[in-house]
Amino acid sequence: MPRLPPARPGMALAEVDTPALLLDLDVFEANMRRLQESLAGRKIMLRPHAKSHKCPQIALRQIAAGAVGVCCQKVSEAEAMVEGGVPDVLIANEVVGMTKLRRLAALAKQAKITVCADDAGNVKDIDAAAREFGVVIDVLVEVNVGANRCGVEPGEPALNIAKAIAACKNLRYAGLQAYQGAAQHQRKVEERRAAITAAVDAVQKTLALTAKAGLPRGKVTGAGTGTYLFEAASSVYDELQVGSYIFMDADYAKNDWTESGIPRFEHSLFVYATVMSRTREDIAVVDAGLKASSIDSGMPRVADFPKAEFIKASDEHGVIKMNGSPGFALGDKVRLIPGHCDPTVNLYDHYVCVRGGKVEALWPITARGAVW
Amino acid sequence: MPRLPPARPGMALAEVDTPALLLDLDVFEANMRRLQESLAGRKIMLRPHAKSHKCPQIALRQIAAGAVGVCCQKVSEAEAMVEGGVPDVLIANEVVGMTKLRRLAALAKQAKITVCADDAGNVKDIDAAAREFGVVIDVLVEVNVGANRCGVEPGEPALNIAKAIAACKNLRYAGLQAYQGAAQHQRKVEERRAAITAAVDAVQKTLALTAKAGLPRGKVTGAGTGTYLFEAASSVYDELQVGSYIFMDADYAKNDWTESGIPRFEHSLFVYATVMSRTREDIAVVDAGLKASSIDSGMPRVADFPKAEFIKASDEHGVIKMNGSPGFALGDKVRLIPGHCDPTVNLYDHYVCVRGGKVEALWPITARGAVW
Repeated sequence: MPRLPPARPGMALAEVDTPALLLDLDVFEANMRRLQESLAGRKIMLRPHAKSHKCPQIALRQIAAGAVGVCCQKVSEAEAMVEGGVPDVLIANEVVGMTKLRRLAALAKQAKITVCADDAGNVKDIDAAAREFGVVIDVLVEVNVGANRCGVEPGEPALNIAKAIAACKNLRYAGLQAYQGAAQHQRKVEERRAAITAAVDAVQKTLALTAKAGLPRGKVTGAGTGTYLFEAASSVYDELQVGSYIFMDADYAKNDWTESGIPRFEHSLFVYATVMSRTREDIAVVDAGLKASSIDSGMPRVADFPKAEFIKASDEHGVIKMNGSPGFALGDKVRLIPGHCDPTVNLYDHYVCVRGGKVEALWPITARGAVW
Repeated sequence: MPRLPPARPGMALAEVDTPALLLDLDVFEANMRRLQESLAGRKIMLRPHAKSHKCPQIALRQIAAGAVGVCCQKVSEAEAMVEGGVPDVLIANEVVGMTKLRRLAALAKQAKITVCADDAGNVKDIDAAAREFGVVIDVLVEVNVGANRCGVEPGEPALNIAKAIAACKNLRYAGLQAYQGAAQHQRKVEERRAAITAAVDAVQKTLALTAKAGLPRGKVTGAGTGTYLFEAASSVYDELQVGSYIFMDADYAKNDWTESGIPRFEHSLFVYATVMSRTREDIAVVDAGLKASSIDSGMPRVADFPKAEFIKASDEHGVIKMNGSPGFALGDKVRLIPGHCDPTVNLYDHYVCVRGGKVEALWPITARGAVW
């Protein structure tokens, strides 16, 4: 389904058609550097989460900057990454059903693939698929360290899954997936720190049991942009799965970062929109609504014009209360900061990469829509 | 960006990979028939809104069933429809900026294209683009009949835009766009009826002025699934822009339909999901989250198992409280009714069309992501 992209390299930003997903390359690169600097001197692996960007171009840049590989959430997302040249993917999630597991095993012939499990029957299925394709797949036990989503409880239940993995001929027990997702957007630093302290306790309790059972330690992997320095400082986590640091959305920006040690990542991702109707006093309607910016974590914020508020989104329209702000004449283009980057990125086929007011490149979002 | 679709024609439903967007063809066709029957004997044109389905296959079926054409909200959506063989598209929205207007004018060389305007400067731009491409474009005045989004006020302000259109050599004044979007999801029939009565008054007031000014009447177009029989009964509206009737989402289903005369459209659109984690008591985690079903109008509902509740969505996970319901063993597949169809459809590349428990066809959603 080809369609003209909203921009061409070399074009001035003001010429870019809207809505478009803009990536400010200077800010994006600065965010990459801030992360590296914040981890300087630490012996910890970095494995950024590709669910945030869904773009091999970005994954390869993260790897070039020192990452060991990327995380994905879905087999189809991993397929897009491997197709785009990424050699090492951890699916930080359960993969259930033989259809998906066969695709997973096929992919493990092309790249280093790791997957998570929280069920003994599923472990047997992964083994069967691996055997069918003649591969050995690394499997982590996902431990529920407080997010209360997937994962087995720490301690004995986690040990049982680890043993089940270790008993399979075509699987290798590779350690623990211990992501505390619920902590990432807690606003106060102390809440986030306490949640990670509890997660570290849960991991240590589990590691004690797996060691006692004679299982290899493997690695402990987890963490997100909201907490990663706490996991890094724990001496338990070996690998960090940060994702949002490259973009920073409006919701993450509401976190308190003071005294967290975590650098101030800046907004690099914007929805570019045009004022398309100005018939009401102090109201500008823009051409970006629900299909251009996900509102699950709140409305987008208006960049550049601090008085203006994005107050309502319908499918194809956004309503901005100008509060007397300039910059909203009919046809004017404005930058919006998405409330939540991940599902917003998933709406677009390209990043329009901008530097110094010009389009420098279009990066295809090849894992857009890769949900299965 | 080719990727294997989640299904093949002939496959059993249970084999379809998840998440996938299912279209139950029997229900879809019954909804099409219900609409036609509800309008039997009325002299009114039907122009369904393609923003709901974004699929030429569906548009062509609507036209074959009697529609005069379709509506779109975006030029890129209209491009996808025309490319898919649709001969007549009304962009029921403003199109602002010469880049988009040139695409609009180019499209008007290939199909019958109508567009809306609510600004005199924009009218001049449309005329300039039409002249550049040697076409005459039909333009409607969008009148604010209570939705308070785009559109000029009824009466004098609308008349002024109509005159501006009529004064342009490459434009034809074609009537009034009068869609009361805010009324569609008002829960009580009487609220919806009152809103349309007010909209009809606003339209009549405007028509009196345009007639007095010697302008042709043109057509009056508008209405949605929540109210269309009220517009149809008004003897003022000439054309109906219903969209959601083919699918019916969970939010629309909350409307009271009793005594509205509007038939009970049934749910034909589902997100198919797999239970991927079952480590917690009475909780099933499915593989469909925010990127598989838009939650802007509320969580999806669980089909087939009335006791089960979808209580939380994160990017790639949905959390279902089973409330003791069967049907949620690990690996089981369940159908979810999206909270809001339009932005959910926009997440997928294909409808997996199902009849009698088998995949009958895959219909490409060629206007998926067509936001500009």
